Amino acid sequence: MKLKAAVIGANGYTGVELLRLLHFHPNVEIAAITSQSQEGKELIDIYPQFQDLIEQKFKNKQEIMNENFDVLFLALPHGAAMEFVKEYKGHARIIDLSADFRLKDEKVFLQWYNQEHLLPQKLTEVVYGLTEICKDELPEAVYVANPGCYPTASALSLLPLIHQKIIETSPIIIDAKSGVTGAGAKPSDKTHFTKVNDNFSAYALKTHRHTPEIEQTLKSVNGEDYIVQFSPHLLPVNRGILTTVYAKPKRKITPTELRELYREFYSEDHFVRIVDTPPSLKDVKATNFCNIYPTYDERTQMILIVSVIDNLVKGASGQAIQNMNLMFGYEETTGLIQIPVSI
Amino acid sequence: MKLKAAVIGANGYTGVELLRLLHFHPNVEIAAITSQSQEGKELIDIYPQFQDLIEQKFKNKQEIMNENFDVLFLALPHGAAMEFVKEYKGHARIIDLSADFRLKDEKVFLQWYNQEHLLPQKLTEVVYGLTEICKDELPEAVYVANPGCYPTASALSLLPLIHQKIIETSPIIIDAKSGVTGAGAKPSDKTHFTKVNDNFSAYALKTHRHTPEIEQTLKSVNGEDYIVQFSPHLLPVNRGILTTVYAKPKRKITPTELRELYREFYSEDHFVRIVDTPPSLKDVKATNFCNIYPTYDERTQMILIVSVIDNLVKGASGQAIQNMNLMFGYEETTGLIQIPVSI
Amino acid sequence: MKLKAAVIGANGYTGVELLRLLHFHPNVEIAAITSQSQEGKELIDIYPQFQDLIEQKFKNKQEIMNENFDVLFLALPHGAAMEFVKEYKGHARIIDLSADFRLKDEKVFLQWYNQEHLLPQKLTEVVYGLTEICKDELPEAVYVANPGCYPTASALSLLPLIHQKIIETSPIIIDAKSGVTGAGAKPSDKTHFTKVNDNFSAYALKTHRHTPEIEQTLKSVNGEDYIVQFSPHLLPVNRGILTTVYAKPKRKITPTELRELYREFYSEDHFVRIVDTPPSLKDVKATNFCNIYPTYDERTQMILIVSVIDNLVKGASGQAIQNMNLMFGYEETTGLIQIPVSI
Amino acid sequence: MKLKAAVIGANGYTGVELLRLLHFHPNVEIAAITSQSQEGKELIDIYPQFQDLIEQKFKNKQEIMNENFDVLFLALPHGAAMEFVKEYKGHARIIDLSADFRLKDEKVFLQWYNQEHLLPQKLTEVVYGLTEICKDELPEAVYVANPGCYPTASALSLLPLIHQKIIETSPIIIDAKSGVTGAGAKPSDKTHFTKVNDNFSAYALKTHRHTPEIEQTLKSVNGEDYIVQFSPHLLPVNRGILTTVYAKPKRKITPTELRELYREFYSEDHFVRIVDTPPSLKDVKATNFCNIYPTYDERTQMILIVSVIDNLVKGASGQAIQNMNLMFGYEETTGLIQIPVSI
Repeated sequence: MKLKAAVIGANGYTGVELLRLLHFHPNVEIAAITSQSQEGKELIDIYPQFQDLIEQKFKNKQEIMNENFDVLFLALPHGAAMEFVKEYKGHARIIDLSADFRLKDEKVFLQWYNQEHLLPQKLTEVVYGLTEICKDELPEAVYVANPGCYPTASALSLLPLIHQKIIETSPIIIDAKSGVTGAGAKPSDKTHFTKVNDNFSAYALKTHRHTPEIEQTLKSVNGEDYIVQFSPHLLPVNRGILTTVYAKPKRKITPTELRELYREFYSEDHFVRIVDTPPSLKDVKATNFCNIYPTYDERTQMILIVSVIDNLVKGASGQAIQNMNLMFGYEETTGLIQIPVSI
Repeated sequence: MKLKAAVIGANGYTGVELLRLLHFHPNVEIAAITSQSQEGKELIDIYPQFQDLIEQKFKNKQEIMNENFDVLFLALPHGAAMEFVKEYKGHARIIDLSADFRLKDEKVFLQWYNQEHLLPQKLTEVVYGLTEICKDELPEAVYVANPGCYPTASALSLLPLIHQKIIETSPIIIDAKSGVTGAGAKPSDKTHFTKVNDNFSAYALKTHRHTPEIEQTLKSVNGEDYIVQFSPHLLPVNRGILTTVYAKPKRKITPTELRELYREFYSEDHFVRIVDTPPSLKDVKATNFCNIYPTYDERTQMILIVSVIDNLVKGASGQAIQNMNLMFGYEETTGLIQIPVSI
Repeated sequence: MKLKAAVIGANGYTGVELLRLLHFHPNVEIAAITSQSQEGKELIDIYPQFQDLIEQKFKNKQEIMNENFDVLFLALPHGAAMEFVKEYKGHARIIDLSADFRLKDEKVFLQWYNQEHLLPQKLTEVVYGLTEICKDELPEAVYVANPGCYPTASALSLLPLIHQKIIETSPIIIDAKSGVTGAGAKPSDKTHFTKVNDNFSAYALKTHRHTPEIEQTLKSVNGEDYIVQFSPHLLPVNRGILTTVYAKPKRKITPTELRELYREFYSEDHFVRIVDTPPSLKDVKATNFCNIYPTYDERTQMILIVSVIDNLVKGASGQAIQNMNLMFGYEETTGLIQIPVSI
Repeated sequence: MKLKAAVIGANGYTGVELLRLLHFHPNVEIAAITSQSQEGKELIDIYPQFQDLIEQKFKNKQEIMNENFDVLFLALPHGAAMEFVKEYKGHARIIDLSADFRLKDEKVFLQWYNQEHLLPQKLTEVVYGLTEICKDELPEAVYVANPGCYPTASALSLLPLIHQKIIETSPIIIDAKSGVTGAGAKPSDKTHFTKVNDNFSAYALKTHRHTPEIEQTLKSVNGEDYIVQFSPHLLPVNRGILTTVYAKPKRKITPTELRELYREFYSEDHFVRIVDTPPSLKDVKATNFCNIYPTYDERTQMILIVSVIDNLVKGASGQAIQNMNLMFGYEETTGLIQIPVSI
């Protein structure tokens, strides 16, 4: 029997991407989709790519409150997710793609999101769903906070080093570059074609909300406080995140030793691939892979790590399904094996 | 009377850009252009944008060896410039846009360019033409080595800090992103449209030849040895370089103090603009400006500097003309005042 | 003495482009700029590209109603221009970049713009400012309706054929492709980066408002009624229009004869260049040129014309200044000689 | 048992796309791949997107001459395919993606390809594989000439009209726009990123080799000679073809009648979708669909048809697999059901 799944807030990039991926999942039935702004409209009238493939009408959130589902994907804007959860009385297990339940400390949430949390007591209950480090918790998880796109790429780049306590705790520099889907589907001056095309810029320096999320994840590995300098930039591309990470090792290390350490650490993780040359966004486009290139510069005695993900897949909807697979006892890779559209 | 100028190697991006800019210079006459591959052809047959504006035929280098010019611009590939100079017996002052005479130490040249230098004794004679720090030397300069595009953006980002000895010497992290014109006009697999479009990648990590050039410039300011971690990336845009620089200050500093320090340092430099928000490539497109945004992160105690230039103008041909202006006693800005084509 | 000029509605693409071009015009002083949405703000706070170059504050339209100017450029949205004109009591000559006064027939206006005209009696008084065919009228013109971007490229492609009555009157097929600036600066779902990037589509088939404007211009040449099939498409580029025109000749003609006919017709027109190979958008980027490639296909017995303009320059602000030059007795090219930024 | 398939010339865009699609085909085993230039190399060293998915080494064509396969896909350059076929003695059924066997008349081949055909007697034996019109022939076909990308989009746009003899035979105007993969993977000046990015142009006007292929297909339907004016343009996108077709109907027709006629004609064809609004390239990206929007303009009495395909899928490798499915008795859609990556 298939899982009955609903996508709450299906009229955004991550919601649509969930539909694209769930449609081919052999164990899932898309049972309902909701959207406040598109309520009552046919999915294919807004998203013609689903013609002949997915037949759904956007419902109101209230309509599905009393229906029975096995799993809910919350693809809601930040803030709207915790409002939904506050109201929701059903028994579905929830995978939340918003930022609302990622931070464990309500004070940190207040400081970076500038907003009181509506359900602070729930924060410590949820599983932070960076799949590669929460595989043991997922089978029992009732509520999973799916990681942010930048934190996924950043943490995967650093985990083997943190695990082995090889690097200094401060500062770890993460120079990140993202495609425009990371900024959301809502039209704005900043995402107007003419502003982004043939252009490039940094934004949210020193203040991006993914910073404490990354620091929290690093700390969760070995208990140490890491200070992250996180600098995002906006690329004139649709999808993809590339992070270039700089860390100071406590001791000398060779590039080969480093690569082996990464290979070893991720040996059980199908979607993380340690590669021998710096990757490009296209190497993982439209797939759940994360390609990581770690290296050591003997001249400067610095460790460099370059990693790429598709922000909508491994950085959002793909990882959500990867988490769902493990929550419900399927193979991690079910429905997620795809070849990148590299051209 | 106008300066008689020749562009040697005018069939490349920097050569063509020189023509675009020199054409409107009130004190310059483009007297000859050369190209090995286009010899004998009319300029406008290859570059229709000059129709009705510049009438020139590509000559052979040999043809112009015995002509009299006031200034030669060498827009030759690396290696070809020193060969040309070895042969040239004329009296023109030379502005060399290649990398051949930028490094002062022939051993460093050998190490990074993997090639013996043909005229090592000349290396110490030439003026390294980062205009903002060589204004005193230019009036007497006979041979100017025009800086590389990355080193221009990188050094301008760091000079005020180096000058004041505010930062630790190692490691200075320069995460740089460049448009495709930086890779030259020659077709290759890496610059094929389908490889670059909607894509992004890092390249030449740990090994880019601009690294020692940047370190040499920093050292030239106060004698200290700086270690630079330079990481270039390829952007899907035609023009422009954005560098994000990370440096550790020796003492606390405020963002305001930092900005004032930059404003003060560049108070006499028309083309360097200290800005209050992170700049984008379009803010300087097709102009000789370098926009710099310096800031300090109190949380991490790190200095961040974001700077942008047009790699073909301030990073090459524009700076060459800026140098020419000062060599020949004109205002620095002559022929170079332009409004960015920001849309 | 310089002309005192004001740009009414300077906070849009054509307004900003007017400022970029007027700044370097030797006979013009930008005396005022207005904007409803940016009222009271400094120009350079919104458009940093003008830093150190243009110092202006956005005023309210009312503020400039009683000031004296020599020329007003109306860069207002359609509809707002005729409202402004209805109120304006000053004596400045006006160049109107909106569509409000382009059509001579108020019924045609109503039909295509779905709106009653506010000043129908004025429609026949204004000069339709396609410079190449109204040079005699401009010196006396008080009000010039600057042509639309598509009609400029389309009419220039066809004028020599219409003038000689060489082609059948119906149907003339104009397959046009425009960059995104043609759709205006206001953010919308259709101009969101992710919708346009790496994509292409047709729009407004059979119904685009530039259709009657093109037909009116063709008829104005020789009195015949031409039927135009106008099909616009949206290109993933910022600037530029390319039109591919198909017309059936009444008699056989050779490509050479055709080219000569075009060269002859435009022999006095500096900005129209008849070229020997199909042009690309970059050949005219950021300039006032229109490059036209006319040819004849002996196999199909059809005439093909490919033309390119920069929609913001020859298709809007550049042509406005070209008109201003002739209105006030300057050389047509004053302030408009520029080399395309072809790379 | 799975079909044993070999891809001859797997180191090009269509070869790689075949691998991407065949990998997930439930009835096919990729048994061998060849490439002259990459001989001996591992597939994943050149195309890292296949890591952990496809393990193959590029062989020499000679190596596979005596192996047994069920089907060969020839993804060779034009000219190389007929050379291969001349040599090949095996019994595999062949699907040829080159242009070598598409034209039935060797004189037409000579005229447009400027080359004597090596196997003229074979030309009339092969099945021209525009799937939608050769479904009856495919089960018995031994050699299928897979259509060109432009002819696929063009013919599908016109077939219902031709079938019903609704339109005049001359001239049919096909204004086509293609992404850069249509120009092949070989680096050249014309496909250099800086030439294509933010640019647009027409090419091969009057002379493109797909012209006679389109005319041949139209004639094959009802025996009439159609004259096609085919004008290709180069889009700054990777994948996709959009064609805008203009035809003169012999009688009046309504848009609704037209749409019904198309729906009827393609009622059995899964991959052709008649849509109600003009399609964009993204609506079919990375899938085998062809979306067609037919309409009639009462004002001009012209029929307009806009269609889109992915040139590498329905325009090449996808259609090849669609043909293979029908040749070997599988469902037409096997292995080809995919949701467009529309963002």
